[in-house]
Parts: sequence; C-alpha cells; structure tokens
Amino acid sequence: MVNKERLFDSLMTLGEIGQMESGGVSRLALTDLDQKGLELIAALMKDAGLKVRMDEAGNLIGRREGRIADAPAVLTGSHSDTVHEGGRFDGALGILGAVEALRCMNEAGIVTDHPIEIYAYRDEEGCRFASSYSGSRIVTGKFEPERLTRADPDGISVAEALTELGLDWRLVDRAARSPASVRAHVELHIEQGCVLERQGVPVGIVSGICASSRGRITLTGEAQHAGTTPMSMRRDPMAAAAVIIQMIENEASRTGTTVATVGRFQTLPGGVNIIPGQVEFTLDCRDLSETVRDGVLDRITAQADEICRQRDIEFDIEIYSRGTAKLCSDEVQDAIRRSCNELGISAIALPSGAGHDSGSFHDFCPMGMIFVRSVGGVSHSPAEWSTPEDCAAGTEVLYRTLLTLAVADSARAAMPAGAGEISHN
Amino acid sequence: MVNKERLFDSLMTLGEIGQMESGGVSRLALTDLDQKGLELIAALMKDAGLKVRMDEAGNLIGRREGRIADAPAVLTGSHSDTVHEGGRFDGALGILGAVEALRCMNEAGIVTDHPIEIYAYRDEEGCRFASSYSGSRIVTGKFEPERLTRADPDGISVAEALTELGLDWRLVDRAARSPASVRAHVELHIEQGCVLERQGVPVGIVSGICASSRGRITLTGEAQHAGTTPMSMRRDPMAAAAVIIQMIENEASRTGTTVATVGRFQTLPGGVNIIPGQVEFTLDCRDLSETVRDGVLDRITAQADEICRQRDIEFDIEIYSRGTAKLCSDEVQDAIRRSCNELGISAIALPSGAGHDSGSFHDFCPMGMIFVRSVGGVSHSPAEWSTPEDCAAGTEVLYRTLLTLAVADSARAAMPAGAGEISHN
Repeated sequence: MVNKERLFDSLMTLGEIGQMESGGVSRLALTDLDQKGLELIAALMKDAGLKVRMDEAGNLIGRREGRIADAPAVLTGSHSDTVHEGGRFDGALGILGAVEALRCMNEAGIVTDHPIEIYAYRDEEGCRFASSYSGSRIVTGKFEPERLTRADPDGISVAEALTELGLDWRLVDRAARSPASVRAHVELHIEQGCVLERQGVPVGIVSGICASSRGRITLTGEAQHAGTTPMSMRRDPMAAAAVIIQMIENEASRTGTTVATVGRFQTLPGGVNIIPGQVEFTLDCRDLSETVRDGVLDRITAQADEICRQRDIEFDIEIYSRGTAKLCSDEVQDAIRRSCNELGISAIALPSGAGHDSGSFHDFCPMGMIFVRSVGGVSHSPAEWSTPEDCAAGTEVLYRTLLTLAVADSARAAMPAGAGEISHN
Repeated sequence: MVNKERLFDSLMTLGEIGQMESGGVSRLALTDLDQKGLELIAALMKDAGLKVRMDEAGNLIGRREGRIADAPAVLTGSHSDTVHEGGRFDGALGILGAVEALRCMNEAGIVTDHPIEIYAYRDEEGCRFASSYSGSRIVTGKFEPERLTRADPDGISVAEALTELGLDWRLVDRAARSPASVRAHVELHIEQGCVLERQGVPVGIVSGICASSRGRITLTGEAQHAGTTPMSMRRDPMAAAAVIIQMIENEASRTGTTVATVGRFQTLPGGVNIIPGQVEFTLDCRDLSETVRDGVLDRITAQADEICRQRDIEFDIEIYSRGTAKLCSDEVQDAIRRSCNELGISAIALPSGAGHDSGSFHDFCPMGMIFVRSVGGVSHSPAEWSTPEDCAAGTEVLYRTLLTLAVADSARAAMPAGAGEISHN
C-alpha cells in the first residue's frame, strides 16, 4: 500500500535542506532553513491532496476531511526542526510518513468519518531557545508565555524569530486546539535507541513517555598538591565521585526499568598535579514510573550523602527538573497493536526514554506512538538511519492506526454529542 | 641568631612584586616582574655583604667567600619565579632564608673554609614555557637546548625572553658549573603539603624527591541517548571510569607510600542527556621508589584493562612522563638532622612529593632539602602561608647546615686534590 520509494525519497529530499558537510542536518527551530523545510512539506502535503495552513504559532497543518466535516480530528505528525547536525529521520519520518499514509488513503479512495490532520510542529528539540516541545505545547494550551522571551545564542528571542517569519507572537495562543476538536493523537517516530534492533523487530508500540529528571551533583573537598598530600590526608571529591557514579549505575540497574546517566563531568581547578577541590556532574534519571524513578533518586541521594560523610566531602544535589510520566492511552496502543497484527509486522511494546511532542497530548486526548527501528540506536547524529523497509513498515502501521481511529465504531461513539447532526461535506 | 622579623619582612616585600588583587603573586619566569623581584633580591644580597652576579642563564648568584677562595662552593638557594597567583613563600623562602643566614654569618664574623653561594634559579615552575627547573638544569649541565624554542601563550620563546632581558641565549651553557666546583647543594623550601602540620613539627628533613609520573587514560565506548538506552545495552565509559578511579585510589593507598591523583576529567560529547562516547582523565602517580611506583602503574594498567574488557570499552593508557627518584645524600641529610638536634628543633624525615631545583643536583653533588611547615598544606595559592617562627626555624637549620657543609673536616677531606695549594684571599 505504502510506496516505500516515494516515502524514502521524500525523507532524503527534506534531509538535503540544512545538510552540512558532515552529512548531518541542521534545521534549527524557526530559522530560514526550518522555513524552507516546511515549504517542501507544504508542497508535498498539497500534492497529496491535503488542505494546508499554518497556525499562529507557525505549525504547519495538512488536513484531510472526513465524512463528518466538523467531527473531532485525528491528529498525527511530528516536528520539523532538528538538532545541530542531527539526522534525516528524527521528526521528519512522523510528518512525511503521515503525508504518505494520507496520500495512500486518497489513492485508495477511502473516506473516514473523522478528519485527519498532520501537524509539523515547531521547536520540539529546544536546541535554539531551550524551549522543547513549544509547537505542540501551544496546540494543547500548555505554552508558557515566558518562553517567547527566551533568546538564542545570537540574542534573538522566540517572539522576534516568529516576527521574522511573518507571524504575530501576540496571537500564538490562537493556535491552541480545544480538546473537543481532537479525536486522538498518534505519532510515528524513530526509536532513537537500540531496543528494537536488539529484539529484531522493525516496529515498537510505545507504552508511554518516561518520567525524566535532571540534576546536578556537586562535591566539595579540598584542592591539594597531588605530590605532597598522602592518600590518607586527602579530601578528594574525585575519589568520592567515582564511588557515587558506580552506586548510581547499580541503583538504576537494580530496578530493571530505570536509566541513569552521568553525561557531563567537571573538575576544578582541573590541573594534572592538583587534587580537585570540587567536582560537579550531571545526573539524568528516567523511568516510566515516577514512583520508581523517585525511589531511585532518593536512594542515590541517601547513599551519596553517606559516602561523602565518610570522606569529609561536602555533598550537594539539585534535581532541577522532575518530569511526569506520560502513559500512552490503551485505546491508541490497542489500535497500533491490532494494525501490526493485521499487517503481520512483528512489534514489541516499549517505553520511550526520550521526550516527544506526543507528551503534550497526554492529558489532552487519547494518544500513542509508533516507533521505527533505528540502526545501531543512533540518533541526533549524521549517522542516524532507518532502512526504507522499516520506515515503510512503520508508515503502514500508522496508516491502519489512523483508519481505526477515524472510522471505528468506538470512535463514533466517543464523538461529542451533537456531532452527528453536523452536515456532511 | 636569625632575625625573624628581618627575614619575614623580606618575604613580604618580595611578595609585593607581582601581587594581584587576590593577594596571590604572579612573577612568571623571565618576565619583567621576575626581573624586578631579582633586583630586590640582588639589593638584599649586596646589603648582606655578598658578591652578586648574574650568570648567562639569568640565574642570580650571591657569593660569600670562604677561607679557601677557589674551593668548591656550598650552594644553596631556590627559585625566583612563581606560578599564576601563587604564594609568597614557594621559592622565595629558600633564597631569602639563605640571604638571612649568610647575613648572620657576616654579623657573627664567621669564616668558613668553603665559599657559599646562593642561587636564585630561573624558571623552576615551568608555568610560562612548560620548562620546569630550567635554571638549575642549566647550572648542572642538564638543559636541553630544544627548550629555548618553547613559547609562552603569547608566542614568545625562551630565547626571545632571555634576549629581552639583555642575555645572550647562545651562551646559556656557560652558566653550567663543573661538579668539581660544587661542594654540596642544600635548599630550604616550604613543604607545600600537610604532613609536618599533621605531625606538629616545624621542620622536615627531606629523604628524597619522589619519582613522579604523568599519564592519560582514554576510555572509548559508545555515545548513546541517555533516555532510550537501557542500562544493560550501554557501553558507558563514564561508568567504567568510576570503577577504575576507585581502583586507582585503592592501589595507591595499599603501598602506604604512593600517591595517585586524577586531577582532570573530560567527557565527550558532554551532554546532560547523552551517555558519553569517550572520557579522558589524567593520572599523576608518585613514590620515592621507582619500583613501587612502576608496580602501582602496572597493577592499575592491568586491572583497568580487565574492567574495560568486561564492559566492552576500549582502553588506552599513555604514561607520557616517567621521572626518576632523586634520593637526598646521607651526608646532607645527616648535617640537617644534626643541626635540628643542636637547635632543639623537632623535625621528621619525609619524602618530597613535589619536584624541586634540588632534583637537578641529584647525581651532580651531595644534595638535600629542608622543609618548613605549610599552614593547611596549602601552596600555589594566595593562601599559601608559613609562620614567621617556622620560617625562622627553617633558616636556623639552614644556617647550621651550611656551616657544617662548609667547615667540617669531612668537607675538607672531600676537597679535590690541589685545592689546599690555592692561595688564600
């Protein structure tokens, strides 16, 4: 059904916009290159027979009408922006896979009850303005107006960037949808991890988006001369950090579901021949269960405190962000699973350790995600890759899932009262 | 005997040259400030009745004649340069303590057999040109001519800096002494560690300068997404580093004499939400015994290799410098010990974990060092401090030790054949 070559060609063509020497793609949010990418997407949407508009926040929307014109729409799509030197699939697959799916529906002459809308969300990555998921947060009424003042490294604010694109930042709220206007949200996305590859399946049914947390641990000892200070007279925060980082790995591994990562580490003053006076490192900790994650964080904190007490090291931990888990709805998960079964595509359920625009829809409408296998688990890199076959498989699953959500009896039953009276178009 | 106030005043006065807002002193080697410091030292030397000259390498020398004019000289002194924002005692005490000692000899009308010379060595710290101990290495004929081409961060080479000071770099070799012209070398220096303070004694008799080594450990795993990569699927070099750094601490502690330090640590790429693909850290390892140090390095290497093998991490260690131990001669150690006993000054023997100009004299002449207690073990810092009482105590010990080395029978017996025939002045 899905045209594998057509889909993959569109991915490669979009990936040429913002492509760097490394092969990586840099289409940062609200830049001219991001805009050029959206112009291509708009052309593809029109070519697929969709009605195209841009909302007040700059999100691009391609709509396919349903039999009941004003019925709540099934939303799909993903983000148009990339990280610095990112890949050709992250975000892009969710948009272009959806365009391919709706094009196939038109080619097959299928009429759905509900309209289907593809969103190309702005600024999911948060690379330019430190403002992840902005586009989808505006659509779901979760946007913090303060974000408009956030500036990129060149001092250009979100508001200014919107103005440069011809948008009126004072009107971004108008891009918000009412929950009543949305039937469900389903997003196709690359896994960005190696679980599907290790399991040997092309497609994953996402159970939810993990509760993430980020923190900073600071250990303060005493900067001393590396040569003149016997081991027994040291207050070395580096040695304490080594014990703590091993403990963090153990605590995360023990639950079987948690992940914890120390990604950045700094020593002060940082001389080869100086025992550091202070070390600081980051802690990223996630689990699909907030309770499990918080338990891990509590145990890490208590044990690190004790390790530092024994070594006369000052211990400080700051968990500066503590997100909530966003479970996918049973209804959408079931629709995806059924689609996989009907298509004979092997799939497993797995949580998403990364955040996604779908998270914005968690308490807004039934939502779910379809993952496509990432080669080597690599993402946010020029080497990011998914095979044409896997991209097509995920798109087939999306196609069927959209049909299920847009025509099923259960969907009709869930329509708001009065929707049935709206005249057909 | 030693004038405590006069000595301490001279330390504080020299410490004003190059003093920064922090209170730290920056008189980097071969700079105008270093030169200004030496002008003050020259004036103090002259005032103490010494004959002052500068050698071809820019080392300043204050000579007190002995009864036998051309007998080998007892050398003392230390370095004139400081690190960036260093203290007022490191190097300075060895020079100004010696000036005070010789001034006292003159005041007491003492005549020694051997002449005594105070050296203010250039560029011990190696901060500006990465060329530690240059002044004393020139004096002992160990200077590598290649060092003349080393440049500071502004691109000025050692040769150019010497030229700016009115010296001819082509002649630096002429500053070399013949071993026959040197009776012994004894250096007064602050400990720069906390052993004397912990032991409650003002003075230390240095047993030797530790064999130091410096290396770099690089662990390469796989940069993966912190959220999407389960703990069991990671190749995390940070987690491996934590195990290795704990092992390094254990291996160094086990010998009872070794010190090992990880002072600098880097993660690549260094994102909060990215499992590092690579970490790199430094290893500084020292012991008074090269055999013990090399044993520790071997055990660290073998175990780190095994830790990395188990975690599928690529392991690389490069020991890019491996120094030799420089034991102090029994004769000079005995002279120092006897001086302490006669003065009733408590002292302990200890190795020097830090390098010193004295190391250049290790295989050149009998050599030794007197350490003075450092408050809090702090050095290379504006907070570096030794009390006037401790500085005076160390100088008293130096005074007596110089007398012993310059008049003792044993010293006379060690004079080269024919020295006795040289006419008295």
